[in-house]
Amino acid sequence: MSLIDLSKHVALGIDIGGTNTKFGVVNHRGEVLEKGNLRTDAYEKVEDFIDALYQKIHPLIERHGKEKNFDGIGVGAPNGNYYKGTIEQAPNLPWKGVIPFGEMMTTKFNMPCTITNDANAAAFGEMLFGAARGMKDFIMITLGTGVGSGIVASGKLIYGHDGFAGELGHTIVKPGGRKHWSTGSEGSLEAYASATGIAITAKKMRAEFPESMLNQYLEESINSKTVHECALKGDPIAIEVFRYTGQKLGEALANFVMFSSPEAILLFGGVIKAGDFIIKPAKLYMERNLLPIFRNKVKLVFSELDEADAAILGASALVWEK
Amino acid sequence: MSLIDLSKHVALGIDIGGTNTKFGVVNHRGEVLEKGNLRTDAYEKVEDFIDALYQKIHPLIERHGKEKNFDGIGVGAPNGNYYKGTIEQAPNLPWKGVIPFGEMMTTKFNMPCTITNDANAAAFGEMLFGAARGMKDFIMITLGTGVGSGIVASGKLIYGHDGFAGELGHTIVKPGGRKHWSTGSEGSLEAYASATGIAITAKKMRAEFPESMLNQYLEESINSKTVHECALKGDPIAIEVFRYTGQKLGEALANFVMFSSPEAILLFGGVIKAGDFIIKPAKLYMERNLLPIFRNKVKLVFSELDEADAAILGASALVWEK
Repeated sequence: MSLIDLSKHVALGIDIGGTNTKFGVVNHRGEVLEKGNLRTDAYEKVEDFIDALYQKIHPLIERHGKEKNFDGIGVGAPNGNYYKGTIEQAPNLPWKGVIPFGEMMTTKFNMPCTITNDANAAAFGEMLFGAARGMKDFIMITLGTGVGSGIVASGKLIYGHDGFAGELGHTIVKPGGRKHWSTGSEGSLEAYASATGIAITAKKMRAEFPESMLNQYLEESINSKTVHECALKGDPIAIEVFRYTGQKLGEALANFVMFSSPEAILLFGGVIKAGDFIIKPAKLYMERNLLPIFRNKVKLVFSELDEADAAILGASALVWEK
Repeated sequence: MSLIDLSKHVALGIDIGGTNTKFGVVNHRGEVLEKGNLRTDAYEKVEDFIDALYQKIHPLIERHGKEKNFDGIGVGAPNGNYYKGTIEQAPNLPWKGVIPFGEMMTTKFNMPCTITNDANAAAFGEMLFGAARGMKDFIMITLGTGVGSGIVASGKLIYGHDGFAGELGHTIVKPGGRKHWSTGSEGSLEAYASATGIAITAKKMRAEFPESMLNQYLEESINSKTVHECALKGDPIAIEVFRYTGQKLGEALANFVMFSSPEAILLFGGVIKAGDFIIKPAKLYMERNLLPIFRNKVKLVFSELDEADAAILGASALVWEK
């Protein structure tokens, strides 16, 4: 009988975001042994990006490769497709069309490469090493510049027939509602509950209420952080911005719960720094819209992992799952 | 090596509806060898129902049991819980509270009994023997008196952490919209796209438009069948009733697609007899609300199985899956 010495095996986890890309060497216990980053948006051509990534990562492989075996590369990227190893039509990345990213990485690094979308990778990281440890059914929602999601049912990420499942940020919460700045859809969750959506709501509301503290800021300084500052100082309009956002989020969460009946919903991303201002109304409107059999069962939980680490950890874990 | 002779094994499939219960003896090939039914609503006490069911089914067991082995009982029932073997708070059944139905059946019939909700059972039947054969990711929507659903991802029914996943009829399609007659929720899919919802829409619209043919019927005769008759005769109001219903259905379907990215959505139940009057607008509004990566990919398919058979077949197949 030959046992594999897990402590000698590591994987590369890479989290590609619109602005930054973060990477790390991760072991089986979910420890990031070394990490680094580079700008995503500095590379117009994906080939140049991969070259630059290789330059940065190669010394890590040399160093750790002396004692450990690199089992492969896991990548979380916007519109990353698990089945095809592609990145497809990602609106926030500089590279357009369908990119055979996994194949390109394998050629460059001479290692197998597994891809999924960034929110899926983060959900996977939370399941193995974070707030969703031991859970088999949960939904992860990332509330950042956009709204992303990863859905786990019976311990497995839901990919759908084409690998694109879990675009909950683009589900419609208000038919005929606010037009999305990029997709053009009307009334999507992302149009309200992302940082971008919150800024839009805040700008509308401060125009209606001249007495709001929000009017002390320049137009370009209105964002979820400044709204939070005003809310903390007791500005009722800033508080209302979050209440409205929380209502829309809660209504959406109720629909998600009636779909997959998760044990918990994990929330993640910059927007949740607003805490109870947004979470209390979200909880209220979620419960109100649920059938009785679902009420007071679903936990709303904040992510335990550092945002970048969650995706790096989840991406690296893909290597061993496959 | 001992091979099991599958042809000698059968299971009992039981489909419990609010009005009728149907049952059948099913073999591994999905052939219903013999079937029967009894009224559900004639039994105020669940014990009496199970006694009556036993009286009806016992002769079948005697007859088929001479040559074949009964491997167990599979039950599809409203609010049937796969994990717990219970039927819980089913609004359309005469028996209230939490009923340990599986246990009671096992005691009475001396066979293992597996339970799931009726729409899940029908979805499972379609996957094994009907229009979803070979599909690993699909959603089944039953449009009848109510709106039920079964969700399959990666070849498995989604049960959720508590066994109650897949209540898509109760997801909100119009926040603050029509109040549901039984749940009290506002703007659920069921409030619009069920036969009950269609009748409500039709009654409202015929009151607004005295010239509509719908006004030739008595109030109690307004249902999806009579609306369909008027639509076939070219009544624009009746056609609008279905268009509006299809719009709400399509908006909901778009959200479901962005959740689990199914290969197809299977439609099932009396309401789909309205055919293109409802399906064309449903398709239109589904596509309009989808992100581009999902567009023109998802098939809308009608069930291939007889409605009762689908659930009996699916329920019986649960026996062998477990």
